[in-house]
Amino acid sequence: MKWIQSIENPFIKEIRRIKKQPNEKIFIEGINLIESALESCFVRIEKVLVTKQFMEKYGEKFFQDKELEIVGISEEISKKISDTVTPQGIFSVASFKMKNLNEVKNPTLITIVDKVQDPGNLGTIIRASEALGADAVLIIPGTCNPLSGKVLRASAGSIFFIPVIKASVRETEEFIAQCRLTLVITDLKAKLLCFDMDYTQPIAVAFGNESHGVSEELRKISHINCRIPHKGKTESLNVAMAATVLLYEVLRQRFKAF
Amino acid sequence: MKWIQSIENPFIKEIRRIKKQPNEKIFIEGINLIESALESCFVRIEKVLVTKQFMEKYGEKFFQDKELEIVGISEEISKKISDTVTPQGIFSVASFKMKNLNEVKNPTLITIVDKVQDPGNLGTIIRASEALGADAVLIIPGTCNPLSGKVLRASAGSIFFIPVIKASVRETEEFIAQCRLTLVITDLKAKLLCFDMDYTQPIAVAFGNESHGVSEELRKISHINCRIPHKGKTESLNVAMAATVLLYEVLRQRFKAF
Repeated sequence: MKWIQSIENPFIKEIRRIKKQPNEKIFIEGINLIESALESCFVRIEKVLVTKQFMEKYGEKFFQDKELEIVGISEEISKKISDTVTPQGIFSVASFKMKNLNEVKNPTLITIVDKVQDPGNLGTIIRASEALGADAVLIIPGTCNPLSGKVLRASAGSIFFIPVIKASVRETEEFIAQCRLTLVITDLKAKLLCFDMDYTQPIAVAFGNESHGVSEELRKISHINCRIPHKGKTESLNVAMAATVLLYEVLRQRFKAF
Repeated sequence: MKWIQSIENPFIKEIRRIKKQPNEKIFIEGINLIESALESCFVRIEKVLVTKQFMEKYGEKFFQDKELEIVGISEEISKKISDTVTPQGIFSVASFKMKNLNEVKNPTLITIVDKVQDPGNLGTIIRASEALGADAVLIIPGTCNPLSGKVLRASAGSIFFIPVIKASVRETEEFIAQCRLTLVITDLKAKLLCFDMDYTQPIAVAFGNESHGVSEELRKISHINCRIPHKGKTESLNVAMAATVLLYEVLRQRFKAF
């Protein structure tokens, strides 16, 4: 097992570049996320970095039955590359294969994320999509990077189990037409309440930017504008909560239709 | 207008104490949250702290028609007391009046939060409760402090518009019995799906700790254990998403019952 002691080491420098702009290579921190990644067919773990402390405490249990290239790092490096205050001391570099739109066959539920800025919101939308049965999540340009550490964490690893696909508005339009999806948009001003619609047919649900909502281009081609009812004084739910509710409503109707 | 330049100033020291343990006094940061607090009958803003930059940029607009005691602070103090990387430069100290259980009359929907640890989750649960029509949020001991800055932010100010009440398990039990509420608990192992229940009668919904769920004491007295359906591979929704879904389901049924 190789040990790296210096934060000037070229591999550590590469990791910091990957962290800044994850793309085909991603950086995964923590036991749970790495365990999830190992079960995923979208991800190939290339190297696992561990501290001496991690190895002593969890090493044997974690690495048994796993064939992984392990690199030791100092506590100092662990602190430097970690996104948490008290790092577990395990990290990995992995290659991530984004899916293409043409790999999604006969979808019945698609989530479209249109310029959502907050990684926590994007991660939660991906988590809701995966948990509630969407076939894929389409990411429109202008949305935050779906492969950043914050998104991975907020998705609780669900991003490794649902195709997340970058698609332009035009590609999304074509895909919607080609798959005969009904496009549903939530809009605070819509008259129609979200549960007064039939979602048992193939649909796409779009969720927009935290301040501006879904962009004009997608609004133009939407088939249904609806709103989630609310009773409170404040401005209602945030985009991640709205996505969770709408995806639940779709699943509920489909359960009931059986 | 008085100006404070030193972080050693007794008032600034007091603020840092309040931030650590908000209780009857709370610390509110940012334009939106302070605007919300000003509309709330639970909160009385005592002092507003502003930087010179804030005053120059927004001061006139923000303070017009508002009678507030304003204190100027240096940029250094602003950075020190802020929870954000780029502070807006406006803060306030306010007194907050927690409600008591006996002030909640004839409730039809109560949220119970049982040892939720993450302030983001608690804030989101409060936000969902307020938006979706709960009458109050009961906080069981062992839950994170509902008055911390993180909870206020995650609640998007909705905490100022719904009674948030600290209540022991025993008080909660008595309240449930006295108000004839049906206690609903979500449980990943329950057979019953959440939409196969009638929520049009007065109910309380309880949400538990991120790792351990609802505590044994509440489980013992629950009337309905149900689960949110899911289709994904991962461990499903987090507690804040589950709360949002269940509270939505209650509101949906009540809308439909009319």
